[in-house]
Amino acid sequence: MKLDGILQFLIPKDKKFFPLFEQATANMVQTAETLCTLGNSNTNEKRKVAIKEIERLEHIGDNITHMIFNELGTNFITPFDREDIQSLASVIDDVVDLIHGSAKRIDLYKIEEMSTPMIKLAELILKGAMEIHVAVVNLKSMKNISAIKEALVKVHSLENHADEVFNNGIARLFEEEKDAIQIIKIKEILSALETATDKCEDAADVIHSILIKTT
Amino acid sequence: MKLDGILQFLIPKDKKFFPLFEQATANMVQTAETLCTLGNSNTNEKRKVAIKEIERLEHIGDNITHMIFNELGTNFITPFDREDIQSLASVIDDVVDLIHGSAKRIDLYKIEEMSTPMIKLAELILKGAMEIHVAVVNLKSMKNISAIKEALVKVHSLENHADEVFNNGIARLFEEEKDAIQIIKIKEILSALETATDKCEDAADVIHSILIKTT
Amino acid sequence: MKLDGILQFLIPKDKKFFPLFEQATANMVQTAETLCTLGNSNTNEKRKVAIKEIERLEHIGDNITHMIFNELGTNFITPFDREDIQSLASVIDDVVDLIHGSAKRIDLYKIEEMSTPMIKLAELILKGAMEIHVAVVNLKSMKNISAIKEALVKVHSLENHADEVFNNGIARLFEEEKDAIQIIKIKEILSALETATDKCEDAADVIHSILIKTT
Repeated sequence: MKLDGILQFLIPKDKKFFPLFEQATANMVQTAETLCTLGNSNTNEKRKVAIKEIERLEHIGDNITHMIFNELGTNFITPFDREDIQSLASVIDDVVDLIHGSAKRIDLYKIEEMSTPMIKLAELILKGAMEIHVAVVNLKSMKNISAIKEALVKVHSLENHADEVFNNGIARLFEEEKDAIQIIKIKEILSALETATDKCEDAADVIHSILIKTT
Repeated sequence: MKLDGILQFLIPKDKKFFPLFEQATANMVQTAETLCTLGNSNTNEKRKVAIKEIERLEHIGDNITHMIFNELGTNFITPFDREDIQSLASVIDDVVDLIHGSAKRIDLYKIEEMSTPMIKLAELILKGAMEIHVAVVNLKSMKNISAIKEALVKVHSLENHADEVFNNGIARLFEEEKDAIQIIKIKEILSALETATDKCEDAADVIHSILIKTT
Repeated sequence: MKLDGILQFLIPKDKKFFPLFEQATANMVQTAETLCTLGNSNTNEKRKVAIKEIERLEHIGDNITHMIFNELGTNFITPFDREDIQSLASVIDDVVDLIHGSAKRIDLYKIEEMSTPMIKLAELILKGAMEIHVAVVNLKSMKNISAIKEALVKVHSLENHADEVFNNGIARLFEEEKDAIQIIKIKEILSALETATDKCEDAADVIHSILIKTT
């Protein structure tokens, strides 16, 4: 019985980790979507609603992460390495936290409209989150490994794109904005958003390492 | 023999990790206390003394951390999971480092008086450190698990409170302070202090995961 | 057969990890050297060449890191603990990333000349990287353990020196520079460079923990 076969055999029993990870990535996608909604909101009221919703989703994400860690503490058999489960749960949690932190800053700093690079980064986070979700869903059945690999490749190219958007955004910020206080505010939000795309890439790396071990 | 019983049986032999962890958390409490003293000092001389003392405690903390890692390298049997020992030692070290870093910045930036949110955060770090100390002491005997759980719950609510203090402090800073250089200085210190409360929460999470595995 | 003997016996079989780690540390040294070259470049053209070269080396470093992780995924027997291999590869990657990030910022922020503390930090990173390289090379043969220990001690003292350079640099920056935007730019680069020396120290700590376990 190949390792792959053993895995296939074990998976049906895993009623816990995969559904939790699917919830976690679905929640990450929804949080990223709400960030895009925030970017497209043209009234203060709509913005307040979006920020509140991101807060709510962050709490849900926290609960899912805690459930994964609890399962990890009480289960001796896990569908893949314990450290990989822990890392994957942590980085998904990080993405949601960073989106939440950005939205919180936009609120605290009274930033009326998200700038073009902020909106572009939000879209790249959403795309990355969707690819991670696809990869996690396919990790469960292990039937479509090439779909997983494709998703991971896309996450890497999205992160490269985000790097470019971030670097150009920062360069332009220092060229055009002469108010240091505005620079402090905008730079912090851009950095948080860019870090969120880094964390998507970290998630892709963990999934890649799971793939290597099980195929 | 239940896992719990096995643990009780093993514990008397552990002459090393628990005393070291108790030293580490006691040192963390003392460092946080000295930060509160710094906040209440009304002369430059008193402030210098407090900062020097924090520096001294940070060195002591470093030594304790190294001793824990050395024990970890040479012991095959540990009272709980190696990664948990490593994580707990690291986050306690992080709390002390962040307090030290904040005190250092207060000195370097020639900040005469800690602001109200800084003092509040220092108090919350102290309270959090004390709860972690209580949890670690009780982890040794494992006789009063509800005391551990209570301590962990308190750490989480302290961290929520710290988040609020930090967010309000930052919002007010940007409203009231018009000197960008002052904003840079104060924001950096507030961020370090708030991160210290995050690390207390991380310590609580590690202890929680140890509890789940052994009860 | 002592553990040491077992290790000596296993090492000849390890055709993979040691050569990869040697490549990784050699690449880190070269990246740090190029940063020093950047510091000594007196024309915009020379600076552009150095920054491009750092970018190239960062890509090479990424590939080496991925190869180490791939080996880790497919090998059951490793010359030392899996987590140590992973940590060491990660921190070496971090050093290169931080050098690259600093060079990128120097470019984006149109900083014509690296300041004296920046150049000093670059030199300390280079020295630290060279010591880590020496330690890794000696880790392979395990014949000259005192050479490893000496290298690690030097890394720690280099990091202490870097702390001092950084703190003095920041204090002077706030005293002399009155343009908040310049402070933001320079502070960010100094912080990244100082963090690179911290990561060298982290690498030394991992190597220290490997030593403890195998001797």
